[in-house]
Parts: sequence; C-alpha cells; structure tokens
Amino acid sequence: MAEIGLQIAEMGRQARRASTLLAKTSTALKNRALLAMADALVARTEVIVRENARDLSAARAGGLSAALIDRLTLTGTTIAGIARGIAEVAALPDPVGTVASLWRRPNGLTVGRMRIPLGVIGIIYESRPNVTADAAALCLKSGNAVILRGGSEAIHSNLAIGAILREVLRDLSLPEAAIQIVPTTDREAVTELLKLEEFIDVIIPRGGEELIRAVVRDSRIPVIKHYKGVCHVFVDAGADIPMALRICLNAKTQRPGVCNAMETLLVHEQIAPRFLPEAAKELRAAGVRLRGCERTRAILPDAEAATEADWSAEYLDLILAVRVVRDLDEAIAHIEAYGSLHTEAIVTESYERAQRFLSEVNSSTVLVNASTRFSDGYELGLGAEVGISTTKLHAFGPMGLEELTTTKFIIYGNGQVRV
Amino acid sequence: MAEIGLQIAEMGRQARRASTLLAKTSTALKNRALLAMADALVARTEVIVRENARDLSAARAGGLSAALIDRLTLTGTTIAGIARGIAEVAALPDPVGTVASLWRRPNGLTVGRMRIPLGVIGIIYESRPNVTADAAALCLKSGNAVILRGGSEAIHSNLAIGAILREVLRDLSLPEAAIQIVPTTDREAVTELLKLEEFIDVIIPRGGEELIRAVVRDSRIPVIKHYKGVCHVFVDAGADIPMALRICLNAKTQRPGVCNAMETLLVHEQIAPRFLPEAAKELRAAGVRLRGCERTRAILPDAEAATEADWSAEYLDLILAVRVVRDLDEAIAHIEAYGSLHTEAIVTESYERAQRFLSEVNSSTVLVNASTRFSDGYELGLGAEVGISTTKLHAFGPMGLEELTTTKFIIYGNGQVRV
Repeated sequence: MAEIGLQIAEMGRQARRASTLLAKTSTALKNRALLAMADALVARTEVIVRENARDLSAARAGGLSAALIDRLTLTGTTIAGIARGIAEVAALPDPVGTVASLWRRPNGLTVGRMRIPLGVIGIIYESRPNVTADAAALCLKSGNAVILRGGSEAIHSNLAIGAILREVLRDLSLPEAAIQIVPTTDREAVTELLKLEEFIDVIIPRGGEELIRAVVRDSRIPVIKHYKGVCHVFVDAGADIPMALRICLNAKTQRPGVCNAMETLLVHEQIAPRFLPEAAKELRAAGVRLRGCERTRAILPDAEAATEADWSAEYLDLILAVRVVRDLDEAIAHIEAYGSLHTEAIVTESYERAQRFLSEVNSSTVLVNASTRFSDGYELGLGAEVGISTTKLHAFGPMGLEELTTTKFIIYGNGQVRV
Repeated sequence: MAEIGLQIAEMGRQARRASTLLAKTSTALKNRALLAMADALVARTEVIVRENARDLSAARAGGLSAALIDRLTLTGTTIAGIARGIAEVAALPDPVGTVASLWRRPNGLTVGRMRIPLGVIGIIYESRPNVTADAAALCLKSGNAVILRGGSEAIHSNLAIGAILREVLRDLSLPEAAIQIVPTTDREAVTELLKLEEFIDVIIPRGGEELIRAVVRDSRIPVIKHYKGVCHVFVDAGADIPMALRICLNAKTQRPGVCNAMETLLVHEQIAPRFLPEAAKELRAAGVRLRGCERTRAILPDAEAATEADWSAEYLDLILAVRVVRDLDEAIAHIEAYGSLHTEAIVTESYERAQRFLSEVNSSTVLVNASTRFSDGYELGLGAEVGISTTKLHAFGPMGLEELTTTKFIIYGNGQVRV
C-alpha cells in the first residue's frame, strides 16, 4: 500500500480505538468538552483567521468565485457564531443510553433497546469550514469518533480548527483521535478512507450531487446521503387560495438555493384558472421565472414552455416548473415519476385528500398546508440538523443527533434458558 | 449488457413498480393473500415434492453431504410447517402506517414519523427452500416487493414455490412482480442483481460467511448482514453457580450450530477454581471439548491448550474456548478485542457489574443472567425473525417485521410558512 494508504488506515485504527472510549464517556464530560471547545475557538480567533487567510489568498490566486470565497471566509463574527452553535449542541439531550421502552416476555425476561453511538463516522464535505466544528460537535455529543475530510480550498482553516478542538480533548484526557482532520488534500486520501469498512461505520457526504455520486461509487462503507431535492407543492381543488399563495411563495423564494425549496408546482385543473394568474403575479414580483406545461401556458401565455427535463430539475434558483393536473392521482403519479423522495406538500381543505396524500406519497417528508421549507432537523424538533437522507435505510429525511446512534438489545433475566 | 443483465434489470424494474402498489395495499388484502398462499402450498404439495425430487436427485448425483440433502428435502410435513409459518405472519400486526408519536412545534405544526415499507428487498440465500416462502411472506406483510435468489441446489423447489405464491397474487389482482424468483443458477445473475441500486433498496444475504463477504464486496446496494457470532458468557465473581452452569450448558449445547450459541466462556479468577471443575464435568458429559488458556489448564489439566485463533473462532460445534480473567474490565476488553458484536451474557449477582456490562458492552444483544440463545427475533418478542444484523446501520441485532420498514415524516399544518 502507498504511504497515504497506511496513514489513512492508521487514522481509522485510532478512530476505532477512540470510539470505544467515547461510547463510555459521561454526558457531563462530553458537555464540558463542548463548552471548552466553544471557548477555545473564540480565544484563538486570531490563529484561525490567520490560517483562513492562507486559504483565502490561495483561493483568490486560483480564481475562485466571489460566492465561494464568501463561504470560505472566517471572521471574528463567524467564529463566534460557530462557538455559539457548539454551545447549543452541549445543551441538547444526549441520546446515548436512553431506553425508549422495556417489555416483558412470557418467560419473565425484560427486554429493551438502548441507544448507543454508531462508532466512527466519516464526513466528506466541500468548502465551508464551519462544517468542521459543527460536525465534530455533533459526533462528540453522540459519542462517535469522527474523521473529517473537507474541501482542499479550506485545508488550513480546517486544520487550525481541528488542532484547537483536539487540544481541548487532550486537556480533558479524552482521546484525541475522537476528532481527526485528514491532513492532506490528496484525492487518493478519500479513496483510501472509503475502503476502511473495518474502522468506519458510516460515511456522510455533504455537498453537490457530483461529490455524493463519487463517494457512493467508491465506498465500501454504508453511505447516508441525498442526491438532490426536487420538491413539489400540489394545490388541490378547493384549496384556500391566500394560504396556497403564501405557501408557494415561501417554498419557492424564502431561500431558493437549498434542497427543501419547491422546484415544481402542481395545480388541480379546477383551481388553476383562478389560482395560477394570482400565483404568477406574486412569484414574478419576487423574481421567479415560470416554465409551464401546455395547460399552464393556456392560462399563463407568457410562461416559458417546460421541457421533459424541467420535471426532474433541481434549479436551486428562482425558476419554477408548473404543471396542471387532472386530480390527486395524477399529482401523486407525477411525484412518483419525477420526484427525488425528498419533500412534498399538499394545500387542501379536503380531509380525505389530505390523508391520502400523507399516506400514499412516500417521500421522506410529506406536509399538509405547510411550506416544504420545514423539512429541516431544527424545524421538525430534532434539536439539530446533521443532514438529510433520501436513502430509506437507517434514516429517511432530516437527521438529528439520534440518527448518529443505533440501538442494542438489553435483556434482564434471572436465570432463563431456552427450552 | 449481456442478456442476463437485461433480464435481471427488468426484474428490478418490475419489482420497483410492484412496490409502489404494495405500499398502498391494505392490511386486510395482504393478510388474505398470505392465508391463500398457505392454503395453496398445502393444496399443491404434490407439485412441490415432485420438483423437489429433481433437486434431490441432482444433489445425490453431485455428491452433496447427507446433512445438506436433509436440509434440501421437502415432504408433506415440512410443507405443512411452511404453510403454518405463513399463516402466523398473517396474524402479526402490520407495521406499515403506524405512527409511534406525534409532537407539536411552537408554530403549531404537528409532526410525526409514519412507518412505510423499504420498497424492494433482495434476498440471497443458500440451500433451504423453506426460506423462499418465509422471506416472501415477511416481505409481503411489510409491503415490500422481493427478489429471491436461492441456492442452485434448490432451484426447482424454489421456482415451484414461487409459481404457487405468484398465482395467488394474480388471483387477488395484486402485482405478480411483488414476489420474483431469479430463474437461473448462473452466478452472473447475482453480480447483476447487486448493481441495481436504482431498483433495489436493500440486500439481505443469509448463509455462510463466504457468501456474505462476496455479497458485501460486490454490492452497490446497502447490505444488512452478520458475518458470524462469536458469543461470550462471562461468569462473574460471586455468581450463583447452579444458574451459571445452567446458562452455560444451554448457551453451548442446546443448539451448537447456530450463531447465538456460546463460543467463548470467560470466568472471573475468584470463582474459577470452584466453577470450572463443575462446568467442565457437565459440559463434557454433553460432549463438549474444552480449549483453555494457561490459567484454565492450571485448574483443568486435561483441557486442550487454546491458541490465539481460538479466541475469535466460531466453532458452530461442541467445542468451547475458556479463559480465566482478572475482573470485569478484562472480560469487557476481551470481548472488544475478539467479539463479533453479536451477543454476550454476564452471570452475576452484582447490581453494579450487571449495569456496567449492559451499558459498556456494545454488542447487538447484551444479557444479564440469561442464555445467549435468546438473541432471536421470536424470543425477544419481535414477532418474527428476518435475520440478525451486526452492522450498526438501520438494524442492529435480531430483525423483525419493523426492520423491513423505515419512517417518513408526516406534518399537519394550517398554513405555516418559514420566517
């Protein structure tokens, strides 16, 4: 094996060892570490900003776009924000050790499922260096060791943040290998990391579809991921029109660049003639361009013509595909054919169709009379947002701290044997 | 792509389509289908036995061992047993559509998680043709489509059973592609199956370690698996000796060839001089051969000497590795170093050490004062046994019907938008 392979494997081995200790670490000590980390990041702002400046000048020399340079930049204010985020993680309940229920078997055994950490988590992400601290905090709180591989543009920032977090671990006699930053930007390091099924329990990629597809292709370790969010709002016949307008405007324009923004609007043919002109007016006033099916364009003649590709497009921009459908069945069929299993909403006054939409649409988040933008760990009350999964295994939808754990069976007996 | 690739991909496509319909199928109709399948298998016993005879004569000609031929053989009695098993699955509660809790957010949204089927399940297994009917029944009950690939020795038996089950689906206007048997023994078919990430949500291999490792290596689809069970019993200082003897004898000898049988016995040094001679007497009377560490052999001079390999051996036979340990910490360290994350038990009268064992040993099933043999879906009250997972993702430990489902978020609003 090449030297880099040996180095990455050694990181995996150390992470595995650290994870065994972390799993037994008390909530109190984990919280103490998190609060100390928040303080340390603020106290060492100067070091972080200096290392971040190295990344920034390389980025400028490399011609990175202004938007990317903005995401890469760390200041006293952003570092204080990161520290506040870590302190909030300390305040969350610790899922480890909780037992949701115990049940009694006829032979007297008492059986339950206790939450335990997953073990070692590998996170592969792009540019934003704040992810380094956020992800490390969430993994520590849930008792997991983490190996972080950020974007090469942020390597100095990430290493500086990592060094500060590890110093806190060392000071509190916690295993330093609980938080490791891959110290090289070599692409080979990722390939080697994805082979370490013996040491890493799950890989969570965060970034664009390209990155995620590459990780899934190369990984021997289970990957929790979502490729994209093609989210739908279906405005039903008889919907409350002011409510439908409010929800559509929010879902499309409140933050168009994120995965839970609406990308396709489906409108029941009975309400389309009244709803679409009003919706078009409000959406256009907010800067949204419309791409409609033929029936939409019969009502909105100046909408662009949608092509087949529009129905599965994730614009992440102020563009909206619009389709008029015959009924709920056609709306559901459209979502099944073109959706990404992410988030779908219905706006309706019909009890029966609300219930049918909730039970028949099997996307990871399904809403009645609310904006798709609520598909988010914080908004749903999970306490944190680790990511969103559109893979059905293990976690489906927004993930909180609990999704970084699994359960084991615990059994209290008094001498039972099998007969 | 070769013809076989096209054929398998078409099976995947049809399974995906069937799964969308199955997810919406009522519990009543699924149960009707299961009961009709049980009846049909009994009614068509003659056909099944005839097709099974073709497999048996090929197996004899191929020189298959008597034990394997025994596992392959179907008779009127075994077929009636399979039918009873399917009727029991019909009687189980349907996990699909259940919502364990609903919670209220400050903005008035009501949020819950509803159980839904995983979608399409691929099951790859060896010889025993009863798995064909069992697995098909569990997948149907949980609303999943299934693609079954059994051992080549059982191909005619499996196809006969599959044809009968599909006839029932057709009669009840359920999608026939809900249950598909890979119709060829070509090894290539498995390779192609494992590529269908677009159509198959999870692969469950059931069989020997070789088979499972090959599936994990080749699969692009998530795999739920366990390689082996190296289960431990730790007899603590001050344990109730009659109870410890009863549990050890049961764990080792009640059914030595299964994955939840004890393979290594750990004994606290304080109890070893009294416990080991009695245990050795009873175990040997049951035909068990002992392989001990040096301290064990100081007490039991005629035990064989254990080598390093014995500590991670899954004998599946009447052989037991025995080690004397200094204390609970050394026992836990041994389990961490050599265990397989399957099942471990402690026999103790100490409240504190019972609690420590339960919380610090992170195997999938951890017991106090009970036999390792209880690590089983039926015994733990899951209603069924789909398999056992020692992978922490999605399911850890024995799997019941619920583990063939996932949850989606359902959200009831009344016009909420994000601010």
